[in-house]
Amino acid sequence: MGAKNKTAITPTREEDYAQWYQEIIKASDMAENSPVRGCMVMKPWGYAIWENIMNQMDAEFKKTGVKNAYFPLFIPLSYLEKEAEHVEGFAKECAVVTHHKLEKGPDGKLVPAGELAEPLIVRPTSETIIGESMSRWTSSYRDLPILLNQWANVVRWEMRTRMFLRTSEFLWQEGHTAHATREEAVKRTLQMLDLYANFVQDRLAMPVIKGRKSESERFPGADDTTCIEAMMQDRRALQAGTSHFLGQNFAKGSDIRFQNEDGQEQFAWTTSWGTSTRMIGGMIMVHSDDDGLVVPPRIAPAHVVILPIVKKDQDNSQVLESADALKAALNEKMYHGRAVEVEIDDRDIGGARGWDWVKKGIPVRVELGPRDVAADTVFVARRDREAGQKESVDRETFINTITDTLDQIQQVLFDRALAFQKENTFHVDTWQAFEEIYKDAKGAHNGAFVYAHWCGSRDCEERIKKELSVTIRCIPFDSSKEAGKCICCDKPSEQRVLFAKAY
Amino acid sequence: MGAKNKTAITPTREEDYAQWYQEIIKASDMAENSPVRGCMVMKPWGYAIWENIMNQMDAEFKKTGVKNAYFPLFIPLSYLEKEAEHVEGFAKECAVVTHHKLEKGPDGKLVPAGELAEPLIVRPTSETIIGESMSRWTSSYRDLPILLNQWANVVRWEMRTRMFLRTSEFLWQEGHTAHATREEAVKRTLQMLDLYANFVQDRLAMPVIKGRKSESERFPGADDTTCIEAMMQDRRALQAGTSHFLGQNFAKGSDIRFQNEDGQEQFAWTTSWGTSTRMIGGMIMVHSDDDGLVVPPRIAPAHVVILPIVKKDQDNSQVLESADALKAALNEKMYHGRAVEVEIDDRDIGGARGWDWVKKGIPVRVELGPRDVAADTVFVARRDREAGQKESVDRETFINTITDTLDQIQQVLFDRALAFQKENTFHVDTWQAFEEIYKDAKGAHNGAFVYAHWCGSRDCEERIKKELSVTIRCIPFDSSKEAGKCICCDKPSEQRVLFAKAY
Ligand SMILES: [Zn+2]
Ligand SMILES: [Zn+2]
Repeated sequence: MGAKNKTAITPTREEDYAQWYQEIIKASDMAENSPVRGCMVMKPWGYAIWENIMNQMDAEFKKTGVKNAYFPLFIPLSYLEKEAEHVEGFAKECAVVTHHKLEKGPDGKLVPAGELAEPLIVRPTSETIIGESMSRWTSSYRDLPILLNQWANVVRWEMRTRMFLRTSEFLWQEGHTAHATREEAVKRTLQMLDLYANFVQDRLAMPVIKGRKSESERFPGADDTTCIEAMMQDRRALQAGTSHFLGQNFAKGSDIRFQNEDGQEQFAWTTSWGTSTRMIGGMIMVHSDDDGLVVPPRIAPAHVVILPIVKKDQDNSQVLESADALKAALNEKMYHGRAVEVEIDDRDIGGARGWDWVKKGIPVRVELGPRDVAADTVFVARRDREAGQKESVDRETFINTITDTLDQIQQVLFDRALAFQKENTFHVDTWQAFEEIYKDAKGAHNGAFVYAHWCGSRDCEERIKKELSVTIRCIPFDSSKEAGKCICCDKPSEQRVLFAKAY
Repeated sequence: MGAKNKTAITPTREEDYAQWYQEIIKASDMAENSPVRGCMVMKPWGYAIWENIMNQMDAEFKKTGVKNAYFPLFIPLSYLEKEAEHVEGFAKECAVVTHHKLEKGPDGKLVPAGELAEPLIVRPTSETIIGESMSRWTSSYRDLPILLNQWANVVRWEMRTRMFLRTSEFLWQEGHTAHATREEAVKRTLQMLDLYANFVQDRLAMPVIKGRKSESERFPGADDTTCIEAMMQDRRALQAGTSHFLGQNFAKGSDIRFQNEDGQEQFAWTTSWGTSTRMIGGMIMVHSDDDGLVVPPRIAPAHVVILPIVKKDQDNSQVLESADALKAALNEKMYHGRAVEVEIDDRDIGGARGWDWVKKGIPVRVELGPRDVAADTVFVARRDREAGQKESVDRETFINTITDTLDQIQQVLFDRALAFQKENTFHVDTWQAFEEIYKDAKGAHNGAFVYAHWCGSRDCEERIKKELSVTIRCIPFDSSKEAGKCICCDKPSEQRVLFAKAY
């Protein structure tokens, strides 16, 4: 394993990017497919990352006045009827509960019994039921704004699933707000997008591009869908969060009305915004390498693993005590509001032990042998560096600089991801060059981020999607007005938009 | 509302205890029934209590080495077949998913489509699927112990529901551990029971009695079921948490085997333990009064409400600024690891405002008018005292003693509940006296806690249950051996057990 040309993960990103992703999850022990088709088991190492995301993001929500609530898992079928009325060829992939009991059938096998008068749907979102509640809760301008969020599981039946990226059940948060004025709702939409962007950049160390979706990619019923897009290591884009300005559309559909200060009845202005465990899939694909997972320190399940060098038939007590003391000293340091979390792995299994932790992506590994104890040193490796690159550090210095070290690693990961994104982002002005980038794109070289002019027509958007599987990821907020010609039809364009292949 | 003989809640506990409970929930704005039969909406004030419980209990779990994981919402039907094999007249009340799609039917209405080959059950617990996972994860003694917990929603179809106490969907945590030795599993069972008891007493201020269930009340498959029982204000018992020692039964059912240090294959020893949103129902019924909810400070959504005295057509800026400054000063104080949380309610709605906060059970209310600002005082009321009992306090003193004040309130609530429990607990030695306590019991005077002798026979237990609706809540751990005669049959008994009517 120590040999320079071998990697801990097979296949490598270059060899088979999709398979590499699956192997990373397996090797790091984050999650596994469950016996229930399309659902995953999030094991402690994977779930702890979600817990850290939840805790930290939730604190940010609350700073903006958002309160959490919890709505039922089930949605009455009738709530979806209205939606179906408007949609030709309506078919919704969702889990349908039709019975409320199991009984033994004639052959002794279990059969569903107690048929429900009205089937229930396992929530694909809680949107409709939150709308119904807001409608009941709102009568005067004094009841507004309502700023709600829910952390929950949702289900959307999926035929082809990939852990963290697309599963039938997934964990997410959905925020829903109702306001008395358009301005306030627009402001909230952008406030939450900024919150997401800052969160994903600062905590997951994933650089993102903020922008709005083209009309065809907008959330149904939204006046404006804003999003953040991150580049994965295969050069594809992953949408890491969305924030929608719903105008009065949703309020009209859900009958959310209020009397304004002048006594006139009006519909509220609403927003919704969401992120999910998909962010973890993004985090994996932005930072991990051919030796395994790489987790940014700020959301890592643990920050440091201590690997005491223990030998069979030998008194290891001094080393083990020294390891415990080191753990205790590190635990006293606070890293962004959380104690520095330390694992001790004292298994006597040779080199596989260190590699296990490389594969799990823990930010810092510390080897501690009798000679280190005697010399008051520790032997330190960082996950942002080559696995073999280790250095002896004075023990006190290590303890006193641990939070700086973690912040450095966090920064290195972000800078590296940003550099990668920039290296793989191009301004393109001809169809030939555009086609060149995408036509043979696959595996770990699956295109690029391309800023190109677009005339605004759905036809051009469709053609590009059909011919090259490339979509407009967003109309970036930081893209200044600039006259040009549509990459597809040569008609005049006012602004470049961001193209990429997407997850 | 200020009149001495009126209460903020109608009916009072004495008038109609069951209805009083519903009114408390409504008046405090904690939760409401949802349009989905048997499911509730937890509104921000109610859900924040659950969040505080989760955060604080989770930290206690983690101190004992427990890690969180997440298992699928759905359970394959076949997982329940084995259970059904053993149970005569098996019928399980649960939500059964039979289809994965909705389509428009011929009449335009939505109909379930895409029938599943095997129906899925919405988890009533994740026990079976966690067992299946533990079986795959365990091969050597080195893999043990496995110490898992899950925070999740579960569904058990209920015909008669009461918010927080019994709903079809509810939120809970379930812990599952697997060990190499019996001793370790027994120790873990009691460790978690102690954790629950301490948690419920220290955070929810609910005194509990620890003990084990009689054989007939044991969890199916458990060798030992331990529990904590609390007294509600109607003198009935509510089980606030359980911890089960499952012996090797569960490991045999789920095939959780491991090789011990000598290379022999053995079944693991397992435990499971759980608490739920039911605790909140208990908290309501232990502390609340005829003026509304009372929330112990340590789990309160907010600790202090500031009520600035504002007047129309007047410059209120000085008072409002002073309120903001007071809030900021209080926010800097830490109360058991959480900043003191403060609400400001500046609505100009007269006396109803103060009563709203009494009904919500916030621990401390502070009125702040121009004269208070001028005199550097605040006008303070505590929820553990009469609503009208208010005192003027020096502002700096109030700020500097806020955490002491909150701890005092916490202690008052616990002491009051303990005194109530003791006043309503009796040692009873004759059937006549026993019957007297329970036979006309109802409403707010629904029996008592009775320590009485029991011969250990299921017949006596059944007779008492049938005739008086009274059950053995537990065989208390603190009940010393004492010779006596069974309350029911006069046969010899070695120990008193705890009887009560129960939720
Ligand atoms: Zn064009
Ligand atoms: Zn007896």
